[in-house]
Amino acid sequence: MADARQYFALPSPFRMKRGGALDGARLSYETWGELNAARDNAVLILTGLSPSAHAARNAIDDTPGWWEDIVGPGKGLDTNRWFVICVNSLGSCKGSTGPASIDPGTGKIYRLDFPELTLEDIGNSAFELARGLGIARLAALVGCSMGGMAALGLLIHHPDAARAHISVSTAPQARPFAIAIRSLQREAIRLDPNWNEGHYDEDHYPEVGISLARKLGVITYRSAIEWSGRFGRIKLEQDQRHEEPFGAEFQVESYLNAHARRFVRAFDPNCYLYLSRASDWFDIAEYGSPDAGHEPGAAVRAALTRIKLERALVIGVETDILFPLEQQQEIAEGLRAGGAKVDFVGLDSPQGHDAFLVDTQRFGAAIGAFMATL
Amino acid sequence: MADARQYFALPSPFRMKRGGALDGARLSYETWGELNAARDNAVLILTGLSPSAHAARNAIDDTPGWWEDIVGPGKGLDTNRWFVICVNSLGSCKGSTGPASIDPGTGKIYRLDFPELTLEDIGNSAFELARGLGIARLAALVGCSMGGMAALGLLIHHPDAARAHISVSTAPQARPFAIAIRSLQREAIRLDPNWNEGHYDEDHYPEVGISLARKLGVITYRSAIEWSGRFGRIKLEQDQRHEEPFGAEFQVESYLNAHARRFVRAFDPNCYLYLSRASDWFDIAEYGSPDAGHEPGAAVRAALTRIKLERALVIGVETDILFPLEQQQEIAEGLRAGGAKVDFVGLDSPQGHDAFLVDTQRFGAAIGAFMATL
Repeated sequence: MADARQYFALPSPFRMKRGGALDGARLSYETWGELNAARDNAVLILTGLSPSAHAARNAIDDTPGWWEDIVGPGKGLDTNRWFVICVNSLGSCKGSTGPASIDPGTGKIYRLDFPELTLEDIGNSAFELARGLGIARLAALVGCSMGGMAALGLLIHHPDAARAHISVSTAPQARPFAIAIRSLQREAIRLDPNWNEGHYDEDHYPEVGISLARKLGVITYRSAIEWSGRFGRIKLEQDQRHEEPFGAEFQVESYLNAHARRFVRAFDPNCYLYLSRASDWFDIAEYGSPDAGHEPGAAVRAALTRIKLERALVIGVETDILFPLEQQQEIAEGLRAGGAKVDFVGLDSPQGHDAFLVDTQRFGAAIGAFMATL
Repeated sequence: MADARQYFALPSPFRMKRGGALDGARLSYETWGELNAARDNAVLILTGLSPSAHAARNAIDDTPGWWEDIVGPGKGLDTNRWFVICVNSLGSCKGSTGPASIDPGTGKIYRLDFPELTLEDIGNSAFELARGLGIARLAALVGCSMGGMAALGLLIHHPDAARAHISVSTAPQARPFAIAIRSLQREAIRLDPNWNEGHYDEDHYPEVGISLARKLGVITYRSAIEWSGRFGRIKLEQDQRHEEPFGAEFQVESYLNAHARRFVRAFDPNCYLYLSRASDWFDIAEYGSPDAGHEPGAAVRAALTRIKLERALVIGVETDILFPLEQQQEIAEGLRAGGAKVDFVGLDSPQGHDAFLVDTQRFGAAIGAFMATL
């Protein structure tokens, strides 16, 4: 199958929030639908930590995308009406420049010489892409999970970048439970001797570390209640087991194994570390005015009110332990206080954080209903 | 400070549920208060995965115990009235026989040659201890967390062993979310090259693996809401940081580090693996009658009704993600169906699974009120 990715050259140098700059950096992206003559029907999607720009199949690449049920003709993001763009995050490894890319200054892979990455850099670079495509103002900016935080970063730096915003299962700042989980994921990678401070190759690869990190991710992306119904205490058949001490005996364990196996070689460990740390660093409260007061949430709210939107949809699920619904309520209230008309949708999907990838019927319906009002 | 541990020689051989037997095995235990002449005031405590038998200070060992605020004169388990016994679980490494003990048959450490351990073995061995102390029937059997499952195992094999039961933050069977977490903890240990299929020593010790396992434990023992209030986004001072790529920056990370450091050399990794797997295996539904029906929970309930108690207190907390309150409701309903008068207490403590070790004021009050009715 052909590759539908297009590439956008970022302004060079592209300056990063915490210092440093990238020369000759690029973003990969895919598009669906047509940009209209007024250039006012563009919808930009920022993804979670690991997906590529391939949100849905298109004429060039017919393989299903990660948001196949949401993006397409007649779907939640209706490509008959909207020109949909999905971008691979700066710092990722699916075509955009990141720690696994060649540093043009040295001719070698960046590895840990890649500058410190923040979600604001991801947001700012995506804004450059939109501008580069001739879009003065997005009809809607969509951000899922990590991409939702990056979207808030984009909007705080470019408050007029979008007329509407769809915020999906995300947070205005990283809280300690999520930081603890991500810190442990990074530690699993770092402690793998094959990580070797970022200097691995195909033959000496931190497979163990990234596998543990992915499994912990999968556990926190789903919910206990869903797994009770799905796996219960079902055991593996004898011929599905490996003869190793304390090896997998339950179906839930082989499910985690399968997830990890698919991920290990598909996502670069250094990119994972950079994106994971960027998520921990994200805190929109940094942009709150100093007179916001000291009660918890005041600075978050003050920052969010600086974002100028006409409309917003904030959507999340009750069973999400990584991005709890309460944090999405904070976003909704802050954007509302900033003057936007905000729809808040809290779903009771049992699938936890991953519901936006799984319970696409309800997410698609909510997104479609919102987009129809624009 | 002197060691208050006493030792009880188990019947030899001591037969294990899944086959195999232990020769010359022993349990370590501590006691508080006095056994009365009628021998009917004994309370036996089965612990969580890692604590020793030292639940509280006593005349011989004045160091604070793990349930210091619950066990003592005038406390929830009032040692002026009750003869309290706490036992270190079979398979642990705090004085009782386990994988880190010497196999009398070979003169070498058991390691993975220790027979497969179940929570029923822990319960049965604790029952032998009570019988060995001349106690025909316990006034109360108390089980916390893993020890709560072992207590149900004890009661299902010896339905008349206790007049009353206190079930603390536990479950009638392991569910897939808890299995997934524990499986990942075991994997972290197993994947540490120093684990070496159980053949480590002080110089080549699976420090990395047990550290990751402990951190994951601590994360799942607490709750997101408590950590948001406690740590927020507080960062470490520059002089508290280590110069290492992707090292700890937030207080919550150094809290996890401190917990892991204290645990790593204090608990034997092979014992951890055995006890962890035993927890996954536990399923009281195994003892449900075949005509229990097939709806979810029917076999659990059928098994629990076989336990003959006069009174029970079932207590847990709403923020526990490892042993959700719903599972404690299952226990309460099952014991009630078996004829016991059951008090159910669901606390809204923010401390998650660990609340029974932290929110001792409310746990102590509930336990004290219950014990006063016996």
